[in-house]
Amino acid sequence: MTDFIPAFTSPAVNRQIVLARRPSGTPGQDDFRQQDAPVPTPGEGAFLVRNLYLSADPVQRGWASNPALTPVDAPMRALAVGVVVESRAPSIKAGEVVYGFFGWQDYAVATPADLLSHIPVPRAPLPAYGGVLGMPGVTAWLALNDIAPPSAGQAVLVSTAAGTVGSVVGQIARKGGAHVVGLTGSDDKIIRCTERFGYHEAYNYKTGDLAQTLATARPEGFNTYFDNTGGWILDTAIRAMARYGRVVQCGTAATPSWNPPPTGLRNERELLMRVLTWTGFVIFDHVARFGEAIDRLTDMLVAGELLYDETIETGLPSVVGALEALFTGANSGKTMVYIGED
Amino acid sequence: MTDFIPAFTSPAVNRQIVLARRPSGTPGQDDFRQQDAPVPTPGEGAFLVRNLYLSADPVQRGWASNPALTPVDAPMRALAVGVVVESRAPSIKAGEVVYGFFGWQDYAVATPADLLSHIPVPRAPLPAYGGVLGMPGVTAWLALNDIAPPSAGQAVLVSTAAGTVGSVVGQIARKGGAHVVGLTGSDDKIIRCTERFGYHEAYNYKTGDLAQTLATARPEGFNTYFDNTGGWILDTAIRAMARYGRVVQCGTAATPSWNPPPTGLRNERELLMRVLTWTGFVIFDHVARFGEAIDRLTDMLVAGELLYDETIETGLPSVVGALEALFTGANSGKTMVYIGED
Repeated sequence: MTDFIPAFTSPAVNRQIVLARRPSGTPGQDDFRQQDAPVPTPGEGAFLVRNLYLSADPVQRGWASNPALTPVDAPMRALAVGVVVESRAPSIKAGEVVYGFFGWQDYAVATPADLLSHIPVPRAPLPAYGGVLGMPGVTAWLALNDIAPPSAGQAVLVSTAAGTVGSVVGQIARKGGAHVVGLTGSDDKIIRCTERFGYHEAYNYKTGDLAQTLATARPEGFNTYFDNTGGWILDTAIRAMARYGRVVQCGTAATPSWNPPPTGLRNERELLMRVLTWTGFVIFDHVARFGEAIDRLTDMLVAGELLYDETIETGLPSVVGALEALFTGANSGKTMVYIGED
Repeated sequence: MTDFIPAFTSPAVNRQIVLARRPSGTPGQDDFRQQDAPVPTPGEGAFLVRNLYLSADPVQRGWASNPALTPVDAPMRALAVGVVVESRAPSIKAGEVVYGFFGWQDYAVATPADLLSHIPVPRAPLPAYGGVLGMPGVTAWLALNDIAPPSAGQAVLVSTAAGTVGSVVGQIARKGGAHVVGLTGSDDKIIRCTERFGYHEAYNYKTGDLAQTLATARPEGFNTYFDNTGGWILDTAIRAMARYGRVVQCGTAATPSWNPPPTGLRNERELLMRVLTWTGFVIFDHVARFGEAIDRLTDMLVAGELLYDETIETGLPSVVGALEALFTGANSGKTMVYIGED
């Protein structure tokens, strides 16, 4: 049962990547600095985690811009997968694997309220619990199944189709019997979509006329659009929907800043005439449901029905670049940064 | 049972208001002309209606622009309330009241497929069957109850609050226990909203800072926004929503033309962060449910729980001006044009 836990060291100091200043827009190297802090001690009801895999997630752009979530000079708010090294919380044991809000640092003191998942017996490699079995995978599972459960005869369109959320959506939709079409930003990713993630078709939104592409791909319109981008791709997809379709708004990665508010095509007439339902989804509303979703996703994973891409980087300093890469499209699959043997 | 049927004549010709040319934008006087046609004869399965009250509805702007719905030189597509004068349809009897797609003319040959409602025994004055008991009232009833059923403790915001759809929404929401706030375009209409239609508060969107007004009226945000306008009022209302709120898109009256597509604030980030559900509603998807909705609305009406405003104009030529007035805000309540004694 511990086969999936890698070797790790126990440093005598707690290295941290802290926010050096409030970023404007997408955070970069100059917005962070590294510092050493004492290894903390858990109080009653808390536990000490040795972080092994730090996560870089698009949602951190929002966290870095919000003083209430990430104060300047504090460790960057982040998800991580780690091993409990000492516990004074009744429900958590030393040696167990946990995934939660542990920050970009070697060690974190946490309580059960900081967890997204508690994995006493891992059934998959640990970094997967930050990706396909973590926030992105659970987001895909719950958002699609709650808002637009796939079924045979339906057509599902997915943006950021090769990303961790998108690729899980695509595979769940395909397994549900839908005709699944992906939108992605490179020809390489198109191949990953169709060869690996089960998309029936995939298109590069950067080339050709997207409206024409979608009209040709599905003349009768799409029943579901799972959107992670917003912006003009969303506007175009809305205009390719069938009547009574559902739009899942899971992310808005295409718009770098919402201050000042950007403008675009008005969509209310399309919503009305196509009789669409457009719903926002925020994963942190559903923390209590992570365990169940992870169990189902893990079942698919061990059965070979759920493929995923990940990039493992090594070393605490590389985590900032891993975050930056999410916004340039330079990443490939879910990036986790291994810091267990630094 | 026939108390509600007014006196009417039986002209020897069928006067019609036909589309003289394809309108650009909102139709006006020059887009129509009057002509005489023979009184038609119903074939097997059809019936002849003497139109008594012609309806002017905002949806006719769309019908007038669509060659498939209203050919040039054909009677303007319109709803009307009339009396069956001859029937060769088994389910319809002479003397019964019907409401349906009979066009702007004295007589129409119709079949049951052309009906929105069949009223063997009227329980209200006939023009009400084109308004509070017709398409607008049924729209309000079904859209609100299907998409965002009101409940105690919730706040419901309604645009075009004093209009026929809006005023019915407001009264249903109030009866459902919600705190109901109206948006309208004149101070006179504010008084109608609060004194007559049961709104707790109403505001003129043309004066003051609407965002500030809404923030003050409901600091915790609105749970439902029932929108008939679109445009900047919609954008502002979305930014005044509470998390998990519902937006009902029932009309887009604030935008005179969708060709070319207008632009405005991007709303997908608000939808996501507020975890909203935004749904389009088209009444013609629900024709089979008119009878049930009309029964419920009529119960409220006869119990004195449902008030409505209407303007009855007289004479076939006035119907074009009645349509124009819908788009200038010059109308007051539902306008029906009585043509039974021309």
